[in-house]
Amino acid sequence: MTTEWRERPVGIVGLGLIGGSLGLDLRQQGLRVQALVHRAATAERALERGLADTVSTDPAVLQGCGLVVLALPLDRLLEPPAELLGALPAEAVITDVGSVKAPVLRCWSGLHRRFVGSHPMAGTAQAGVEAGLQGLFRGRPWVATPLEGRTEPDALAAVRELAEAVGAQWLSCEAEAHDRAVALISHMPVLVSAALLQAAAQGGEAAGAAQLVRQLASSGFADTSRIGGGNPELGTLMARCNREAVLAALVQYRHQLSALESLVRSEQWPALEAALANCQALRPEFLQG
Amino acid sequence: MTTEWRERPVGIVGLGLIGGSLGLDLRQQGLRVQALVHRAATAERALERGLADTVSTDPAVLQGCGLVVLALPLDRLLEPPAELLGALPAEAVITDVGSVKAPVLRCWSGLHRRFVGSHPMAGTAQAGVEAGLQGLFRGRPWVATPLEGRTEPDALAAVRELAEAVGAQWLSCEAEAHDRAVALISHMPVLVSAALLQAAAQGGEAAGAAQLVRQLASSGFADTSRIGGGNPELGTLMARCNREAVLAALVQYRHQLSALESLVRSEQWPALEAALANCQALRPEFLQG
Repeated sequence: MTTEWRERPVGIVGLGLIGGSLGLDLRQQGLRVQALVHRAATAERALERGLADTVSTDPAVLQGCGLVVLALPLDRLLEPPAELLGALPAEAVITDVGSVKAPVLRCWSGLHRRFVGSHPMAGTAQAGVEAGLQGLFRGRPWVATPLEGRTEPDALAAVRELAEAVGAQWLSCEAEAHDRAVALISHMPVLVSAALLQAAAQGGEAAGAAQLVRQLASSGFADTSRIGGGNPELGTLMARCNREAVLAALVQYRHQLSALESLVRSEQWPALEAALANCQALRPEFLQG
Repeated sequence: MTTEWRERPVGIVGLGLIGGSLGLDLRQQGLRVQALVHRAATAERALERGLADTVSTDPAVLQGCGLVVLALPLDRLLEPPAELLGALPAEAVITDVGSVKAPVLRCWSGLHRRFVGSHPMAGTAQAGVEAGLQGLFRGRPWVATPLEGRTEPDALAAVRELAEAVGAQWLSCEAEAHDRAVALISHMPVLVSAALLQAAAQGGEAAGAAQLVRQLASSGFADTSRIGGGNPELGTLMARCNREAVLAALVQYRHQLSALESLVRSEQWPALEAALANCQALRPEFLQG
């Protein structure tokens, strides 16, 4: 019963990094992929790259699909056009790939009976039709956020099969827990990292060492500043769509930074070393994936 | 005249990551390296690894050296034992590798006439006698902080030749400018990164998502938390020896983070996107090295 979706084409809406990577992996498994994109030029290039079997700018391309993955940016996902909604097969399982889940569920659980919120946690710095690559999801978490008593069990099972077919690790939790967790480990850190770049630039300027800070920055700075120097649209979208959890995470963050700062200010070196030793012990727990 | 140091053995005090790597590189250039270490077991292992031609726990091993590199941790560098001071040849050029320069100059410029403060900016996560590796300094900055009217020009030139002999990029600046710059791009970021680990752990706990934050942390979190999860003794030593500059850098940092936070709080999304776009443009300027 749950494997029914495999007998029909899989629909993908949007062939950027996530949609395109998914198309490549599913096609390699012998599944038929029918994709809807926004622009004719994208459709052409997606076909050249083999991201899907059929690519069209006409929502009718989704007809006959047993499972449709909405691989859209969050803002477009949260304001779906009527013609997309009209083209989603009523019996198909619908899922998304958005990195914030509570607002997606609020929007979509009223729009389609067989909607399942999910979030494959995979990515690169790339975006667009050139970004998709094979094996992107292998070994990465794919989190579903079913609504109790509302999400249909067989729809959830189908999304799980899809995730596992591309090698992802299936996880399931409440949407609010997901959103708070990603605020802490992904969305808030973008701001923490961005502030570091600004502080180095502004502080360097103020200290008459604007050139020097640039010359002396090493791999440690490169790592710490990587996500802060990433895609600004994406960073803004995360903060916008997960605003409350990001603000709560920032409160938590400021609290921790202030505690470390006061250890430095009051010259409590053994206590600072103990705190840093605790961080050293903590970090491997976050690197299991 | 300045190449005179090459005609005599080079002394290295301490054969950890920096001292050991230097020994390997200098020996490969056909220079004779005589090293002083703290423990007999270290001396034995250093000889096995070929880090120096002679290794001893007796400061007399430095006799006859034309240039001596003090490759000691900052705390030991700032409290040099009398027997070390007594063993430094009066005519030799002396330099250090400490990552904070003003306190080193305050301490050492009164201790040896031919002292030159310097800081090779290279490293790995390793420490100890097993850590030294060939080519560590190649293409990395080696910063000298001469005191005007005090540092002897030929001593400075000798240290420059040493740095360039191992492939480093020579830079020269004032000690205070150096210390402010490394606070901004290296020492303060350790605390910023450590606070992130603590916030993720504590925030996860508070949100009932302790396990989830660990499962969902991805490569972005791994990068941003890397230096915060590093050697706690080193992080503490940096904060202790560069305390004022680190505190000033933290003030600058908090200011920048608060500004980003208030954009989120007041939902100024175009302004947030512009700030993140600025960060995206800034970062490559810090990756020239």
